[in-house]
Amino acid sequence: MFRFQIKSYCPNTFARTGLFSTPHGPVETPRFMPVGTLGTVKGLTASQLIETGAQMILANTYHLHLQPGEEIVAEAGGLHKFMGWDGPILTDSGGFQVFSLSEINTITDEGVSFRNPRNGSQIHLTPERAIEIQEALGADVVMAFDQCPPSTAIEKDVDLACKRTHDWLERCVNTHKRSDQALFGIVQGGCFPELRKQSAEIVSSFNLPGIAIGGVSVGESVTHIHTTIRQVTPLLPGDRPRYLMGVGTLREMAMAVANGIDLFDCVLPTRLGRHGTAMVNGERWNMRNACFRHDHRPLDSSCPCQACRKHTRAYLHHLVRSDELLGLSLLSLHNLSHLIRFTTSMSHAIKDGCFSEDFAPWQTDSAAHYTW
Amino acid sequence: MFRFQIKSYCPNTFARTGLFSTPHGPVETPRFMPVGTLGTVKGLTASQLIETGAQMILANTYHLHLQPGEEIVAEAGGLHKFMGWDGPILTDSGGFQVFSLSEINTITDEGVSFRNPRNGSQIHLTPERAIEIQEALGADVVMAFDQCPPSTAIEKDVDLACKRTHDWLERCVNTHKRSDQALFGIVQGGCFPELRKQSAEIVSSFNLPGIAIGGVSVGESVTHIHTTIRQVTPLLPGDRPRYLMGVGTLREMAMAVANGIDLFDCVLPTRLGRHGTAMVNGERWNMRNACFRHDHRPLDSSCPCQACRKHTRAYLHHLVRSDELLGLSLLSLHNLSHLIRFTTSMSHAIKDGCFSEDFAPWQTDSAAHYTW
Repeated sequence: MFRFQIKSYCPNTFARTGLFSTPHGPVETPRFMPVGTLGTVKGLTASQLIETGAQMILANTYHLHLQPGEEIVAEAGGLHKFMGWDGPILTDSGGFQVFSLSEINTITDEGVSFRNPRNGSQIHLTPERAIEIQEALGADVVMAFDQCPPSTAIEKDVDLACKRTHDWLERCVNTHKRSDQALFGIVQGGCFPELRKQSAEIVSSFNLPGIAIGGVSVGESVTHIHTTIRQVTPLLPGDRPRYLMGVGTLREMAMAVANGIDLFDCVLPTRLGRHGTAMVNGERWNMRNACFRHDHRPLDSSCPCQACRKHTRAYLHHLVRSDELLGLSLLSLHNLSHLIRFTTSMSHAIKDGCFSEDFAPWQTDSAAHYTW
Repeated sequence: MFRFQIKSYCPNTFARTGLFSTPHGPVETPRFMPVGTLGTVKGLTASQLIETGAQMILANTYHLHLQPGEEIVAEAGGLHKFMGWDGPILTDSGGFQVFSLSEINTITDEGVSFRNPRNGSQIHLTPERAIEIQEALGADVVMAFDQCPPSTAIEKDVDLACKRTHDWLERCVNTHKRSDQALFGIVQGGCFPELRKQSAEIVSSFNLPGIAIGGVSVGESVTHIHTTIRQVTPLLPGDRPRYLMGVGTLREMAMAVANGIDLFDCVLPTRLGRHGTAMVNGERWNMRNACFRHDHRPLDSSCPCQACRKHTRAYLHHLVRSDELLGLSLLSLHNLSHLIRFTTSMSHAIKDGCFSEDFAPWQTDSAAHYTW
């Protein structure tokens, strides 16, 4: 049911294009995946999402468990039917959210207890439970339940979190039953090279259909992200999709693709969109800014999205200034289109043999100054 | 440039179907027109609007004058280009908003002075200025500047407002220059039959390409709305489109069409949608209601809109409960589709000779109990 075919390699870097087949259709890699936290990519309909070039989208186990609850989603026939999205879906395990958003009571080897922010009740999440919930949600790809330590954690604590993550991965593997779902493991290890190496080797040994790198997006420096990707990626099996969690900036995606990463996700494009910010040429434009008031040019003349094709900067400025919902939807639509188009451009460049040349500028620290 | 062709009549009522040609395409009547106050029908893209069956849409002169200002819209090439809507547009004159939303300083025969709610400055609006602004906005249909008295006004005050409205209409006619814009007059007169009759006759005497009935939607009883429509409509020229302003309930639209009304507008479908309410079968459903939690049926199985075709009540409930933007957009989309489909169904029934039979229940006071 799942197959990852590598279609082409860049001769000068580790970049590759691939086709990841899932029960709900193929995902051409490298590709950015929009985040649909609560079973909706905020403000966009399924047909608008298709317009952005989205193939696989994410949904959050933690959020869907709290509201509406996985039993409602299962009743509806699973997440695809519930949210009206026929393409591939990936659910995270909830691990990241438990550790970053929750008021935690206890963390033991068994699992985590935390407070339900909606009603104050106690929720107990274990690797087994995280897989059960994800099986009820019914995404194509499910993620192992991991412990994601804060970026400030000392080596001893990260080591403990890693060991636990590996134990939990084994329990996830043993619990996971649905053959129409692919279970991906997650490499942790913070900014400690030896722990990252160990984690990459242990997670790889499970022979899973895909592997993710976690814990690089949380308040980390660019240098750390680059270093971690360079260390970890070569240790992962070459014939499986590699997913860099939580990263969605052009520079980091270009660098990651050059090192052999295939999939990305990030809440940034929709979050920025909802706050009136457009991603253009690797920059962030606050559309409330008065400089756009009389600017009747398209937002990004090279972008084929609806916001750029049918509207102007002055109109988007007017919508954002007037707190009109449409402004937030159009900017989210554009930002997602922008990131997805960046990843598909890398894909075309790899196929055409010009990736290392065309995307070299993006892999340097001065990339923020280049336009795309 | 403007032409109104009547295509068919109902043999038993005054209902008719027509084709109103404008520089931006035809409007098949009877038809409901969505309201795009600030140059956007709240939460919907132009392509979503087309999906609802919308042909002519409204925009508000008062709101657009305050933000972004008609000079920006004119710079962009007019409202159609500014908002990315290629179909016909109608702008109201701002009269209704000045009298209902503003802190008014003075009303004289010359015009109205009111406070700009955005910055406290004084704005002076006259019939001449209202037409100038609308010419700058560039809609296909522009409305005369009228004085719309509150529904509680006594006869003497309504009489004064009517006289002023008629004087202002003459000044609008004299000011209006653009041949690619049709100027519609507005009949006022409150709940006073003699004043309504006078107003209908005077406004009709201007030989304008269309006539509207104003002042029926503002806190009026259903009986008053029905009485006014029955009194006024027969006095209007039969060969011009007749527009009932601010009305968008199924019962009143059915009754109005039976009396020869062609066009409607109302903020209700989008306002209700934004507050999580769906219009189904002539009822209003609060989608936050727990009864929808496990309801995996389409919102309205007879409705072809995206919200009904691709989603369920349980999903819409979940979106509304989670304050997700998509819920508000989908409900607005559905509510507009619902009202527009109701008016096009009347149109089909008139053509098929079954209007008086099929829509008779809608013209009674118990109509709220019928489903559609």
